[in-house]
Amino acid sequence: MAADTLINDFELPFQLYDVLDAESLCESSKFAEHNRGTFDAVLDTANKIATDLFLPHNHVADKNEPQFDGKKVSMIEDVKVAFDAFRDSGFIAGRYSFDDGGMQLPETLMTAVTGYFMAANPATTAYPFLTTAAINVLAHFASNDIKNAFMPRMLTGEFTGTMALTEPHAGSSLADIRTTAVKQADGSYRVKGSKIYISGGDHELSDNIVHLVLAKVPGGPSGVKGISLFVVPKYRLNEDGSVGIRNDVHLTGLLHKLGYRGTTSTALSFGDDNECYGYLVGEEHFGLRYMFKMMNEARIAVGFGAAMIGYRGYQYSLAYAKDRLQGRIAPNNKPEHDATAIINHGDVKRMLLAQKAYSEGGISLCLYGSNLIDRINTCEDETLKSELSELLDLLTPVLKAWPSEYGPKANDLGIQVLGGAGYTREYFAEQFWRDNRLNPIHEGTNGVQALDLSFRKLWQNDGLGIQILKREITKDLESINTPESAQLVAKQLPYMEHLHEVLVHLSKTLQTEKVITLTGNAQALMNIFASIVVSWIWIRQASKAEQLLGTTNDIEKQNFYQGKMQAAKYFIDWELPTIKRDIELLMNDNSICTDMQADWF
Amino acid sequence: MAADTLINDFELPFQLYDVLDAESLCESSKFAEHNRGTFDAVLDTANKIATDLFLPHNHVADKNEPQFDGKKVSMIEDVKVAFDAFRDSGFIAGRYSFDDGGMQLPETLMTAVTGYFMAANPATTAYPFLTTAAINVLAHFASNDIKNAFMPRMLTGEFTGTMALTEPHAGSSLADIRTTAVKQADGSYRVKGSKIYISGGDHELSDNIVHLVLAKVPGGPSGVKGISLFVVPKYRLNEDGSVGIRNDVHLTGLLHKLGYRGTTSTALSFGDDNECYGYLVGEEHFGLRYMFKMMNEARIAVGFGAAMIGYRGYQYSLAYAKDRLQGRIAPNNKPEHDATAIINHGDVKRMLLAQKAYSEGGISLCLYGSNLIDRINTCEDETLKSELSELLDLLTPVLKAWPSEYGPKANDLGIQVLGGAGYTREYFAEQFWRDNRLNPIHEGTNGVQALDLSFRKLWQNDGLGIQILKREITKDLESINTPESAQLVAKQLPYMEHLHEVLVHLSKTLQTEKVITLTGNAQALMNIFASIVVSWIWIRQASKAEQLLGTTNDIEKQNFYQGKMQAAKYFIDWELPTIKRDIELLMNDNSICTDMQADWF
Repeated sequence: MAADTLINDFELPFQLYDVLDAESLCESSKFAEHNRGTFDAVLDTANKIATDLFLPHNHVADKNEPQFDGKKVSMIEDVKVAFDAFRDSGFIAGRYSFDDGGMQLPETLMTAVTGYFMAANPATTAYPFLTTAAINVLAHFASNDIKNAFMPRMLTGEFTGTMALTEPHAGSSLADIRTTAVKQADGSYRVKGSKIYISGGDHELSDNIVHLVLAKVPGGPSGVKGISLFVVPKYRLNEDGSVGIRNDVHLTGLLHKLGYRGTTSTALSFGDDNECYGYLVGEEHFGLRYMFKMMNEARIAVGFGAAMIGYRGYQYSLAYAKDRLQGRIAPNNKPEHDATAIINHGDVKRMLLAQKAYSEGGISLCLYGSNLIDRINTCEDETLKSELSELLDLLTPVLKAWPSEYGPKANDLGIQVLGGAGYTREYFAEQFWRDNRLNPIHEGTNGVQALDLSFRKLWQNDGLGIQILKREITKDLESINTPESAQLVAKQLPYMEHLHEVLVHLSKTLQTEKVITLTGNAQALMNIFASIVVSWIWIRQASKAEQLLGTTNDIEKQNFYQGKMQAAKYFIDWELPTIKRDIELLMNDNSICTDMQADWF
Repeated sequence: MAADTLINDFELPFQLYDVLDAESLCESSKFAEHNRGTFDAVLDTANKIATDLFLPHNHVADKNEPQFDGKKVSMIEDVKVAFDAFRDSGFIAGRYSFDDGGMQLPETLMTAVTGYFMAANPATTAYPFLTTAAINVLAHFASNDIKNAFMPRMLTGEFTGTMALTEPHAGSSLADIRTTAVKQADGSYRVKGSKIYISGGDHELSDNIVHLVLAKVPGGPSGVKGISLFVVPKYRLNEDGSVGIRNDVHLTGLLHKLGYRGTTSTALSFGDDNECYGYLVGEEHFGLRYMFKMMNEARIAVGFGAAMIGYRGYQYSLAYAKDRLQGRIAPNNKPEHDATAIINHGDVKRMLLAQKAYSEGGISLCLYGSNLIDRINTCEDETLKSELSELLDLLTPVLKAWPSEYGPKANDLGIQVLGGAGYTREYFAEQFWRDNRLNPIHEGTNGVQALDLSFRKLWQNDGLGIQILKREITKDLESINTPESAQLVAKQLPYMEHLHEVLVHLSKTLQTEKVITLTGNAQALMNIFASIVVSWIWIRQASKAEQLLGTTNDIEKQNFYQGKMQAAKYFIDWELPTIKRDIELLMNDNSICTDMQADWF
């Protein structure tokens, strides 16, 4: 693979067409205008723009992060050039209907499209992606007035979007936000408060920035039930819709991040002069519910991005391992023998296989999640639709947390494959590692995801989600009739039993005072659940690869399929068994963590 | 603990006096001049210098790394001030005899001394530490002429030292170095070649830099058997010993590292004008053997440093977790209840406990290793002496690799505890993480350590090392009569059996063609072996803490002991069982990694 190849040419077609049968989406009326030809054209365009305009400045932007002179934010020119090309491609509106000026493409395909950009340059990619996420909320929940005012120019990228949730004193704890919004006679609100870690919160890439701001309307319920959602534009709009004067929202400073440096991370102040106009989205006090709709899809995007950064680090270290000559292997291990490429050493293979298993596992997992959204959106059977929605809801914490836990692990191994070179900034392995470190933190920390899974998602609607998941897994596994994949199934099934036992046990624990132990063991439960899900995702890939292996004489394709099968075997033998520890902890209601007292540290 | 407290006041006294009984070393003639009073005075001095002069510029030096203008290397002034204070303290010669102008202190104590400096500022600390390491080689292997010429001024820090092993084309593969040394009529050599990643390879902190350079004398054996060791000073010495003209060794450039930025990492060119004078250490072709003597002790230092950086990140995130209010805990989880410090959340406790287990486990492990050196050096029974040397040899890869694998994991969790703040450079958690990422790479990558353990150390001298280790562990565990620690022993013993089974199995595998699988599974064997060793190290701490718990009414001490016991329980329940996966892999001679073909990736 050449150094500027972002994704192996076989990878996305395999995931989309072989594993997911994404072409079948074109049978639905929604996607009837599309076919594999149009899908491929879209992917090619994405690949080209990402390769030509996003990739070249990925490291330049890291070394030259945005600056704030007290008035304006400046950044290297390349970001604007790339952003404009993304705008012009129409990708911001890719998911939207032809009527809205969009391409009416499935979520599955749009997720694949984002893969090229995340691999090439996650920091620049954040600007259009945040805009897409904000549009998503407005499209679902805003009044027509608000939609008409902002959405068309967001869909073209003339306006960009942000999500302004976090406040300096309240990170994960949204119940405690203090930003207020007071209703005025004209129906608009005046917003006042401070937000922090707002990505894309200021820049000069677009004509306007549309902040989606969580705030409390005085007199509302306390806690999360009193949170409302507002559109707060950087510039107010004139009567005719043109961009007007500055709204009273100001950048108080840029945060200096460890990675992802090309994306501005901002502290924003709203209403210093009591003139910050905000427009209510939907109804008062429903803000968090609206925001979660967006966050759930943003969570898949975070997981997929983490997998892609992991994948990029994998490919980077793979190219190095093929090129770097060092050491010898028996029986050719005399000094007079030539040195071998390090990829031939067993421990280097282990590090590369792990990277492959983590990153391609994450990619496949998140594409499954995206495909689920399409299945839900095109489903005509209401029962099935709600079942699949329940499944998506159950999987969302996994789609976010697993790739964002293992993508960074892949990047860590990528550094290790390079050795000393990996520790220098003259090579790029370290940037992937720094960039990806964000993903376990934002869009709900992985700790929050584990709690969401352990205390809510596994149990809601009487555990309907897990029933549907078992049905999906069983359907796949029972259909497997290729010998090597069948062996993987045989190894995986006992863990399905263990999961069942753990859940039966926990359903009792939750009724006792031992429930507290689960706050300390939630990560262990996430490990169990996510590892079982990803092992299934890997078996799906392996069985498809095994089927296809005999159908081609193309040696490169054969190698690709062999690699898929080997990575699945690696996952089943090396990764899945690590959850034995977690199963034991949960079956015993292990209380080591929650017994620990703050004063004992 | 105040923000500028480097190490909990109870920690080192507990490790040194309670766990290791370091005072008993004073019964030997070598350390007869010392007692706990002199030890404590030395520790206090180290703590004071580290806190006052090393800590304040740790982050400043990271943000302002050394610069090379083509002639000289410049760096912030604080480094020189700190280095000079370290020199003046006499610590460089701390291990050396009173006759050599040293303090004749045990290795155990000197390792503890380094703890303060590594916690405060690992990058600045590297300069004197590398000097100590270089002295160590000269003291053991150099001729009196060389010793007299260089050692006294290295012991005072007027001269500093480096280890110049790695070459651009040969990292871990020292057999392939190309630097040559040609003998001259006067007995000196002319050195020619290139070295890379030489820490402290140039700077203006000292009057001279003494490079210890691996090179090949033409006509010698091929491979590692043809490597010799040379002293190559930056400045040649005049007849009278005074510093003379520049030697023909030049800085070709600084490497720009991901972390540890305060330490210059250099590319050096030797003999561009064929005038690079080098002086043979010991005999020709024995260079690697000499260097390994130094490297083995350097490996303990790397492990201990990794544990200390991990410890610092733990303390930093602990202080944050006690201070940061967020969320609520049932039954006080209504919006009107006050927010709680995040240290009270189960998942945060888990992350802090893991950090504690990793960092204090590493500290205790490496102090055990240092103490072993003292036991060897003061041992009058030759049989015991060689047994303990064998044990040290066996443990060396673990002393290096385990803390440098888990120290960075602690720093990763440290970032996670801080959440969004942890991802910004406004907080320091990220620097600890970047600094510590070096440690799995240098002084033999952790992959090399795993191979060293798997193919050499476990088997040499008919497995004498492992026999001695079992004897040491059994002696400790059988003496435990406190109830909670006895439970830990009961959980640990089955793993000792498993280790035995694995080794019996591998002794057979090594005789078959399946031996190749062990190159892919070496890391799994390291996991098993290291986890069992560290579980013993934790049980030693727990049982001592349990003994002492009842002997004091001091609530702070009681808390400290409780914390030790809880961290040991955490290690036994949460960390040790992860090796079940590894045991299975090895017992099956799992071949997933080595079966993987380069073309399949």
